[in-house]
Amino acid sequence: MPEAEKSVGLVSLQYHTIEEKIKFESGVEFGPITVAYETYGQLNEKKDNAILVIHALTGDAHAAGYRSETDTKPGWWDKLIGPDKAFDTNKYYVICTNILGGCSGTTGPSSINPETNQPYGTTFPVFTIEDTVRVQKKLLDYLGIESLYSVAGGSMGGMQAIQFVISYPEMVKSAILIATTSRLSPQAIAFNAVGRNSIISDPNWNGGNYYNSENKPDRGLSNARMIGHITYLCEEAMYNKFGRKLQNKDHYDFNFDVDFQVESYLQHQGQIFVDRFDANSYLYITKAVDYFDPEEKYGSLTNAFKNSSAKFLVISFDSDWLFPSYQSKEIVSALMNLSKDVSYCEIKSPCGHDAFLLEYDVQSKIIKSFLNDNIEEVKNE
Amino acid sequence: MPEAEKSVGLVSLQYHTIEEKIKFESGVEFGPITVAYETYGQLNEKKDNAILVIHALTGDAHAAGYRSETDTKPGWWDKLIGPDKAFDTNKYYVICTNILGGCSGTTGPSSINPETNQPYGTTFPVFTIEDTVRVQKKLLDYLGIESLYSVAGGSMGGMQAIQFVISYPEMVKSAILIATTSRLSPQAIAFNAVGRNSIISDPNWNGGNYYNSENKPDRGLSNARMIGHITYLCEEAMYNKFGRKLQNKDHYDFNFDVDFQVESYLQHQGQIFVDRFDANSYLYITKAVDYFDPEEKYGSLTNAFKNSSAKFLVISFDSDWLFPSYQSKEIVSALMNLSKDVSYCEIKSPCGHDAFLLEYDVQSKIIKSFLNDNIEEVKNE
Repeated sequence: MPEAEKSVGLVSLQYHTIEEKIKFESGVEFGPITVAYETYGQLNEKKDNAILVIHALTGDAHAAGYRSETDTKPGWWDKLIGPDKAFDTNKYYVICTNILGGCSGTTGPSSINPETNQPYGTTFPVFTIEDTVRVQKKLLDYLGIESLYSVAGGSMGGMQAIQFVISYPEMVKSAILIATTSRLSPQAIAFNAVGRNSIISDPNWNGGNYYNSENKPDRGLSNARMIGHITYLCEEAMYNKFGRKLQNKDHYDFNFDVDFQVESYLQHQGQIFVDRFDANSYLYITKAVDYFDPEEKYGSLTNAFKNSSAKFLVISFDSDWLFPSYQSKEIVSALMNLSKDVSYCEIKSPCGHDAFLLEYDVQSKIIKSFLNDNIEEVKNE
Repeated sequence: MPEAEKSVGLVSLQYHTIEEKIKFESGVEFGPITVAYETYGQLNEKKDNAILVIHALTGDAHAAGYRSETDTKPGWWDKLIGPDKAFDTNKYYVICTNILGGCSGTTGPSSINPETNQPYGTTFPVFTIEDTVRVQKKLLDYLGIESLYSVAGGSMGGMQAIQFVISYPEMVKSAILIATTSRLSPQAIAFNAVGRNSIISDPNWNGGNYYNSENKPDRGLSNARMIGHITYLCEEAMYNKFGRKLQNKDHYDFNFDVDFQVESYLQHQGQIFVDRFDANSYLYITKAVDYFDPEEKYGSLTNAFKNSSAKFLVISFDSDWLFPSYQSKEIVSALMNLSKDVSYCEIKSPCGHDAFLLEYDVQSKIIKSFLNDNIEEVKNE
């Protein structure tokens, strides 16, 4: 843990188990569910300074701070969460949970089914984004939090933030929706589908029963991650980062080893991913993402948001081609149709979809200002 | 074979074997190579009316006409090749070969190595786009063709057309480069790399030795094709074709079967592909495509084209994000720097990269006009 840095410091993963069964959108009743979460800052007496921060597809509850004194890598949104940072832990009580179905502490397909003492595998019920926020709501109930100062998330985290506002409109004072969408394009569904297909067609996946095997569906999962990574970057980012540069060589190898840096990068990303993520979790979570479509479910996005009295901040990145800016603008339009208080900012960035995890300067200012209620003068710098 | 249609009619695949070994760009000497090809129209006495048409990544030599009386599906560019069509077989002698390393008649990794009586598999040498046009040149030599009225191709076919002009500048009177590029972007390399990785990580690939096995790397190849197909379409095409429509159902299935039409389409494309294409050929040909980079090889694109006296027609499609228009414009700029005779047209189309196989009306007019030397008034309609 680097010293003399503004940080929430040492943090530890906490757990809460929801003992009663929860009815999922599919109709299945499921439980118990253990929720893994971290918190930063202090809940005030009125319990009205809580901010729920929600992670993206392969994230976890470790959004800020360090897990140990020797830890060098802080949480995934550490640049935004901490004393005097955008999510100012001197003021706010920030909560981040691992998603339902995940593999970083919250109950998911790799968890042990207490009825069988075996991992759930594909007996785990398919769930939706609505189900994931239902679980988060149960945690907030447990923490005695009846009102959220804000709910914030990037990418899939933003989709959950949207659903939180829709499911619990009375509870949310503001929402920060970053690099997100109210529904995936067919192209984005296609990428997820090929990723899942890659896992399912790995013989080691074995119908989802691989937890007791030495051979995991690592190749399938790695491939899925490689596909995902292409969509998180953008052409400009790839030119800036790799161009057509070769990897540790001056000439082509004339074989099927890695020639280009971009190949090496993707293979590396695939390889390190399998050490931290569960293939079945990837299947379930991408399916929930594909299913998310409040416009379809509530008749229109306007109808979906109609009971909300929250203020909204919507941020997109111009080079994000996975969830392009026009999708953020659709959210903004729906909110404007309802005369909701909404601010929108498209940030110029060469970082593609990943920008929500990379472009901190502008994001910090905008979010800080929004949370401080000074949102009129937000500028795209 | 539908009647009363303007068509080249019945055609048959022909073969020519280049007996002597050819020196590949890698330094390897390889042979014999059998080239599979089709021809349409008649070679005139002067032998100066030949047009070499070159197929794309997974195409074959069957560019026009029908293979039998009962055949209902014509060759892949039948709408452009035939009597009175853009490549008018009343005037021109059109030749199309299956690519070196392919699996539709020309020697490739699935061919039998006469020295071992076993399929080459991965003992087949890695080749380049330059090697593929070297093989085509040998066929033209055999046919007694010393001059090409034109060389034309879309996508990878266009890359070969570029290389043909570079390798044999004295031979080419005109070149038609459609939906192509002088070098892949890192993003396009990334997609190819993931496709190859998908094949190589399929246990049935077995180091490329699967020809005598019952189990082929169909799952890996199918996945690679699915990835490819996403890049051949564009977001607009996917919205038009599929949107978020479900496949034969009104509600989500809450399992990992296909839910969306776009998933079903991609799976179908993957499944039918494995019946007609060889996984090793996919590896070799995508590698040749990744390696193609005349700018790197000749110092600049301008230098690469400097010996050419051909007229050029360059066509791109505005929705093509695999080989975007800016890449065609780079080719045009290089040719303009050399004061070459070059026409460029960006066609508006919602079809993405696939447009070169779908948008025939405008392409026909432009190509016909170009070949008739009336290229001044070409308009983007």
